[in-house]
Amino acid sequence: MLYDALTDKFKEECGIFGIFSRCENVSMITYWGLYALQHRGQESAGIAVTDGCVMDIQRGMGLVPDVFKNGVPEMAAHIAIGHVRYSTTGSSLLRNTQPLLVNYSGGQISLAHNGNLTNAHEIRSGLEKEGCVFQTSIDSEVIVNLIARSGKPTVEEKVSDSLTGVHGAYCLVIMTENKLIGVRDPNGFRPLCIGKTGEGWVLASESCALDTVGARFIRDVEPGEMVTIDDTGLSSRHFAAAERRAGCVFEYIYFARPDSIIDGQSVYEARFNMGKTLARESGYKADIVISVPDSGTTAAVGFSRESGIPFAEGLMKNRYIGRTFIQPEQKKRDLGVRLKLNAVASVVKGKSVIMVDDSIVRGTTSGKIVRMLKDAGATKVHMCVSSPPIGYPCYYGIDTSVRKELIAASKLVDEIRRFIGADSLHYLSLEGLHASIPNISGKTLCNACFNCDYPARIPCAEQCSCNKYVFEPTQRH
Amino acid sequence: MLYDALTDKFKEECGIFGIFSRCENVSMITYWGLYALQHRGQESAGIAVTDGCVMDIQRGMGLVPDVFKNGVPEMAAHIAIGHVRYSTTGSSLLRNTQPLLVNYSGGQISLAHNGNLTNAHEIRSGLEKEGCVFQTSIDSEVIVNLIARSGKPTVEEKVSDSLTGVHGAYCLVIMTENKLIGVRDPNGFRPLCIGKTGEGWVLASESCALDTVGARFIRDVEPGEMVTIDDTGLSSRHFAAAERRAGCVFEYIYFARPDSIIDGQSVYEARFNMGKTLARESGYKADIVISVPDSGTTAAVGFSRESGIPFAEGLMKNRYIGRTFIQPEQKKRDLGVRLKLNAVASVVKGKSVIMVDDSIVRGTTSGKIVRMLKDAGATKVHMCVSSPPIGYPCYYGIDTSVRKELIAASKLVDEIRRFIGADSLHYLSLEGLHASIPNISGKTLCNACFNCDYPARIPCAEQCSCNKYVFEPTQRH
Amino acid sequence: MLYDALTDKFKEECGIFGIFSRCENVSMITYWGLYALQHRGQESAGIAVTDGCVMDIQRGMGLVPDVFKNGVPEMAAHIAIGHVRYSTTGSSLLRNTQPLLVNYSGGQISLAHNGNLTNAHEIRSGLEKEGCVFQTSIDSEVIVNLIARSGKPTVEEKVSDSLTGVHGAYCLVIMTENKLIGVRDPNGFRPLCIGKTGEGWVLASESCALDTVGARFIRDVEPGEMVTIDDTGLSSRHFAAAERRAGCVFEYIYFARPDSIIDGQSVYEARFNMGKTLARESGYKADIVISVPDSGTTAAVGFSRESGIPFAEGLMKNRYIGRTFIQPEQKKRDLGVRLKLNAVASVVKGKSVIMVDDSIVRGTTSGKIVRMLKDAGATKVHMCVSSPPIGYPCYYGIDTSVRKELIAASKLVDEIRRFIGADSLHYLSLEGLHASIPNISGKTLCNACFNCDYPARIPCAEQCSCNKYVFEPTQRH
Amino acid sequence: MLYDALTDKFKEECGIFGIFSRCENVSMITYWGLYALQHRGQESAGIAVTDGCVMDIQRGMGLVPDVFKNGVPEMAAHIAIGHVRYSTTGSSLLRNTQPLLVNYSGGQISLAHNGNLTNAHEIRSGLEKEGCVFQTSIDSEVIVNLIARSGKPTVEEKVSDSLTGVHGAYCLVIMTENKLIGVRDPNGFRPLCIGKTGEGWVLASESCALDTVGARFIRDVEPGEMVTIDDTGLSSRHFAAAERRAGCVFEYIYFARPDSIIDGQSVYEARFNMGKTLARESGYKADIVISVPDSGTTAAVGFSRESGIPFAEGLMKNRYIGRTFIQPEQKKRDLGVRLKLNAVASVVKGKSVIMVDDSIVRGTTSGKIVRMLKDAGATKVHMCVSSPPIGYPCYYGIDTSVRKELIAASKLVDEIRRFIGADSLHYLSLEGLHASIPNISGKTLCNACFNCDYPARIPCAEQCSCNKYVFEPTQRH
Repeated sequence: MLYDALTDKFKEECGIFGIFSRCENVSMITYWGLYALQHRGQESAGIAVTDGCVMDIQRGMGLVPDVFKNGVPEMAAHIAIGHVRYSTTGSSLLRNTQPLLVNYSGGQISLAHNGNLTNAHEIRSGLEKEGCVFQTSIDSEVIVNLIARSGKPTVEEKVSDSLTGVHGAYCLVIMTENKLIGVRDPNGFRPLCIGKTGEGWVLASESCALDTVGARFIRDVEPGEMVTIDDTGLSSRHFAAAERRAGCVFEYIYFARPDSIIDGQSVYEARFNMGKTLARESGYKADIVISVPDSGTTAAVGFSRESGIPFAEGLMKNRYIGRTFIQPEQKKRDLGVRLKLNAVASVVKGKSVIMVDDSIVRGTTSGKIVRMLKDAGATKVHMCVSSPPIGYPCYYGIDTSVRKELIAASKLVDEIRRFIGADSLHYLSLEGLHASIPNISGKTLCNACFNCDYPARIPCAEQCSCNKYVFEPTQRH
Repeated sequence: MLYDALTDKFKEECGIFGIFSRCENVSMITYWGLYALQHRGQESAGIAVTDGCVMDIQRGMGLVPDVFKNGVPEMAAHIAIGHVRYSTTGSSLLRNTQPLLVNYSGGQISLAHNGNLTNAHEIRSGLEKEGCVFQTSIDSEVIVNLIARSGKPTVEEKVSDSLTGVHGAYCLVIMTENKLIGVRDPNGFRPLCIGKTGEGWVLASESCALDTVGARFIRDVEPGEMVTIDDTGLSSRHFAAAERRAGCVFEYIYFARPDSIIDGQSVYEARFNMGKTLARESGYKADIVISVPDSGTTAAVGFSRESGIPFAEGLMKNRYIGRTFIQPEQKKRDLGVRLKLNAVASVVKGKSVIMVDDSIVRGTTSGKIVRMLKDAGATKVHMCVSSPPIGYPCYYGIDTSVRKELIAASKLVDEIRRFIGADSLHYLSLEGLHASIPNISGKTLCNACFNCDYPARIPCAEQCSCNKYVFEPTQRH
Repeated sequence: MLYDALTDKFKEECGIFGIFSRCENVSMITYWGLYALQHRGQESAGIAVTDGCVMDIQRGMGLVPDVFKNGVPEMAAHIAIGHVRYSTTGSSLLRNTQPLLVNYSGGQISLAHNGNLTNAHEIRSGLEKEGCVFQTSIDSEVIVNLIARSGKPTVEEKVSDSLTGVHGAYCLVIMTENKLIGVRDPNGFRPLCIGKTGEGWVLASESCALDTVGARFIRDVEPGEMVTIDDTGLSSRHFAAAERRAGCVFEYIYFARPDSIIDGQSVYEARFNMGKTLARESGYKADIVISVPDSGTTAAVGFSRESGIPFAEGLMKNRYIGRTFIQPEQKKRDLGVRLKLNAVASVVKGKSVIMVDDSIVRGTTSGKIVRMLKDAGATKVHMCVSSPPIGYPCYYGIDTSVRKELIAASKLVDEIRRFIGADSLHYLSLEGLHASIPNISGKTLCNACFNCDYPARIPCAEQCSCNKYVFEPTQRH
Repeated sequence: MLYDALTDKFKEECGIFGIFSRCENVSMITYWGLYALQHRGQESAGIAVTDGCVMDIQRGMGLVPDVFKNGVPEMAAHIAIGHVRYSTTGSSLLRNTQPLLVNYSGGQISLAHNGNLTNAHEIRSGLEKEGCVFQTSIDSEVIVNLIARSGKPTVEEKVSDSLTGVHGAYCLVIMTENKLIGVRDPNGFRPLCIGKTGEGWVLASESCALDTVGARFIRDVEPGEMVTIDDTGLSSRHFAAAERRAGCVFEYIYFARPDSIIDGQSVYEARFNMGKTLARESGYKADIVISVPDSGTTAAVGFSRESGIPFAEGLMKNRYIGRTFIQPEQKKRDLGVRLKLNAVASVVKGKSVIMVDDSIVRGTTSGKIVRMLKDAGATKVHMCVSSPPIGYPCYYGIDTSVRKELIAASKLVDEIRRFIGADSLHYLSLEGLHASIPNISGKTLCNACFNCDYPARIPCAEQCSCNKYVFEPTQRH
């Protein structure tokens, strides 16, 4: 996860896609699949393909249509994998684009990764001590080195072997000259699902990508499962003993597209329920319910449904935000928000307003939006957040820079309310959140950023610093 | 107006912006203003500036952030005008970007234009006969030639003079070395409003651009009015006798951003009312009301409010659509729609659905969306359109290619319903549309595409061909 | 002409090319023709084509391969014209690229121009008074307006008519829907020649472009001649009474490629003769003769031949200079020369050296080269220049900025020698120059930059300022 | 070495540059140094820098000015290394650009390589068997893996250690956080020299780069020597026992810039001598001596000096060739040569001509040039080649595709003469070649492509195929 200052949101880091088909243009289908997963990563993209003998790859910085504006890899291929990701900007970071493509003793292998290993640094140090070199700063390079060093005979066994000592969150699509392999970590932090398209098989981070390319959803890859697709069809094995199931709850709150279904749970339904639960929990009354678009909209509609308070679009979003633009200088910071959002005066003027957003990270943007609504004539702004306070950093993500800035790590709810200038502020309770995700037990989700209960080992150094954030949970609600 | 096949929508052709300020970076403010008007034109952009002596200009193909990725004109200027537009693609069309910038006997003049002249061809032929040359195919070049040829002493009089024989729709921002001029045609087809930013004055196609740059809305430019802004402030004159007021009703239905207020009418409120009126007119009952995002959403929420039928997001839009991408080949046409929209099965499965869209042009896309909803499990799809059938071409636009393809010009409503596969189909009545725009009398709007009542002269040849589309209006409803 | 500070040379401003052929890819042939003329203009390029009905055009900033990196205009055309030019940099200058392409009462016309009108400003002012607008700052726009305003019935007569009042240097290639027209001004300042390629006809600034595209040289266009090429073949007329013939002598000294033949005179032979004459005139003795590559080489070889002093390559040129690169800052100015040239120590060490260059403008670069040679061990550097001192500005060019900096306008030859640090300095005499161009009488060349004898009217204001430079010619030699 | 079909030349594959200086902008100096080495590689470029803590790198496809058009790495650094190279085209080959930059157990290391290992494949296979992965197809990645795997304590020892088993040609510049290391293989195939710039030290493939950046030439790096530059100055060690010295003789014939001095031998002097020797060996008489520019010019001037036959420029080169341009289709192949070269008719008409070129690979281009000269009127064309026939492939290069096409491997000299249509053909003898390089013993050069005497081990498979080319040397002369 990364942090986006303009929106005050965490950002999902990656989306992955893979296809095995002898009857379709796998390169183009991967392009469209990545297009559907663009919300999972907007800063680089790549597609690797193979025809059974050689591999070709194209990677670049930018959105999917920009990276492939001169076309996708043209080889007559039957396997392709693709990747979209966030990364810090700068052309020198070109080398961090995925998929990785390497030669090793077994031939060629290409790999795309969604997630973050918690012990990548340790493994990498270990591998470096054994003489490995690393040309990128991405976790996937650690995995590919482990695969290459495995003495096991088959590629599936090599992959299993390599993942033995790896901790953290990872979904992988791996391509050899004749196989497409999908892997999901034993905790199942990140989503990965399987689809079928006529003769072919598809793997994708989210089911919305299956819908887009016209593939039929088959099932999710299970935590700890490795699926292999080749000319004999799909086979499956479990490469790791069952661990505590811990799907990232933020996929339901914010990351995934609402039209995706993850581990049997419709994301839309979950967000809608969160809104309904918020309505019950908060008991807020007002003239209208509005959302911070687009991510807060589904919950706002749910809030309206439950409370009977009319839903309205009190904030409009510039649909062309998202691409890089010249940023206003610091003193024009409010302009940054206004370039993205505008209050609809005719909706909010003279009204008391319940504003639903999905999360608050530092709180800086929320304050500007509240002010914008009041400037437009809203008499009251009651803010409802469809997630609990984020009090603990995510160690299955990497954006350390923001850890000390989590507003809920150092401020009580009422302090936060004052900071953002809202008349009321309600965070969804963890119980409420879990109740809103009916198809999945809350215990089988990763709620660590809310309750400090980390399902997988986190680095020691980090564990200590983690304590800095420890508050009595009750205090914060 | 142009036609967009992927969405089956007409497209507004241009947005314009101008600023006069000695205390601000007018070039950057114009950049942000164009950013806010990006929905009015996504294929080229340009900014011209002046410091009182010379003018500088930068124009290019692409979205605003792309055209100015290496920065905006850097001159220390106090006047700037900008333009965004649609156009057919192709680098050779670079020469059709605006603003225009010319030298003439009075010095330099730069001009940006939103609208379409109905007699541009005639005037151009006449000017060519008098020895004029034309380097572009844009109407604005006709206007600038007329200005240059006027014998009147002041630039305001030259502009007035030049517009005497011009018919059709035009809003202009014009920049001389020391003046910013705004002009709106006597019918007031297209919007243009005035804002104030501290010391400076702003002109913009829509008030949302004023909000974005932090300017205060002052008033709309009146039809037939010319405003001049210079160091003495703003002055106004009427350059033409009052004609029938005829603001384009489609600005309220689809073109403008909902957070804009045009001629005293909130666009949001109008769209919301259209939905409410649709609910009353149609009397449709169903489990849920959904919209074709994003343009149908406000009306869908209004429909829900009026009918009490719950609003839900049954269709999800890929937020990254909009930029050019590799199009699927013809036989994969459905993919084109799936790349843009996806049904949310958990919302629509087993439900009867009222789907609200703002307009139908050829009907091709609507059919695909209806099928998508049914594939996702919707039991019934009742389509409601928040505008009357489009039976007549817009001669204040230019997209002739689509004229014969207006589905409502050749099919009765029930034929259209069958064509798109909906279970019911209701178009908003013209009376209902007008009732939904309470602040403006329906008679002072241009409704020609619905009722063939063209407020301004249209070309003869066109007038004849127009008759081809004449049906008894009652037949079509 | 423009001035290039890095080389201390004037630069030819433009190259033009045209082809009429129903059997060849005229667009590609124009591309290759422009490639051969690249030395005449490296900052923008353009190609316009027609198939008899419509015209297409592509223009851009950069070298020919860069402007057309995505291909040339693809229309199945039978006429094409092209243009390369120098211009000041800056993307805003995109609008000054040629060919021009306009609509006028007679249809479409496209025009490319090499040269500079001396009364363009006056004509333009006059046209502006009559209501014309100008969108570029190039002379050609004046001509195209005059053509459009001519009342004459045929395009040839219109062109003739338009050129009646035009003074200065101009070669034009003009394309209508069915004709290719070539025009050379009555003084014949700039070159233009005719070639034949199978079925087709070619016009080009220099014969080297004919050789490159495989066309056979037919003849030069005569001063005051207009040739028309259409399906009936080539026809000719004289559009203007004979004026003093005045081909630019600098074409032979520096501008043209040595493998071109202009007005019956081989450029190579002329440069070789200049070197021989220099040897006789100077009487210099030394160990070796070297050149400032590449333009001084032919004369240096001639000097060697006449004097018997061995020719050697004492200076090596970086073959990749020419494209834009990050310039060293001012204090590293010598680096600028070193990036371009390097002394060959093994050649010059311990040797007295005669260094042949074609011209000196401001003298700044020559001084650096002399120092470089001495640093490399040359004992003496005797500089020979294969042109007389440039004491007067060229009014058939436009680079006014350098006029006051002509070193020969304010310094005697011995002062210049001291300024550049050479041990001797000899400029070719005007008589010697003329004797080196045997096929053309010196009186029929333009020698104005050497002797202030301007063959065509120059602007009044300029004429006065011209006097500032008047020295007794004998003084300067 | 690669092969360039347009010129029928082998191409040097790489140029390298390094600088250590606390007083200069090492990034910019590397840029200019690479600019001076551009002739050694025109398809990609890269610069890596370090400030003692972190490293930054920028790499891309294209010429130096293109790759760094938005600037060089901006870090305030004190060490930088750079690389230019040829490679096959295709954006996917972006990953093969250098310098390499890796993390390993000792920190970060960056490396640029000129040359080709003869056992890279074997070592790579071995490393892969031990679990290494390779992300590029460049030899340097093998070396950097060996360095990382070395158990030695210091980086210098690691580098020494890694090179123990490496065979072939390699010059390396290596950068750690605080050291710049230069390495030259024990045979000294490729050049590498040391310069001093005020406080700083420079390493460069050729001395011309030292001249360009204003550095003073100190000495060549010796074969088998490793130099380390850090804050204590320059230190040296020999990492390998002395092997047979074998500098590539083609550096003198064609690859290096004439203004470079390599291993004490001026390249210019050597080429000049080759021309003189050719004159003596061939005994050819003719009216003029011309060169195939630019590479044949120095030898042609030498030929003229020795023979007394006048030198003239009978062929002119388009100075803008070198950048990618749209290639004529196959049937227009001659056009390909004409785009590059043009005969100067006034020089060659009616003359017998001695044409000097540096080498013939396949002979295809030579034939076209001979025909061009005869078309221009040359009565006789006697071709002189300033190198012996290339009968054997270079295993210290990689361009296997051309091996079977070496014309001298399968044709006798007179057959070649007939093939290219020359009236006479003389190749410089090996003895003559060696005599032309007076400062270096012929036995200490690598002459393998002429005499099959490979100084360093070549791959077995290759050795066998090598036999296919074995002719009696006497037969071919």
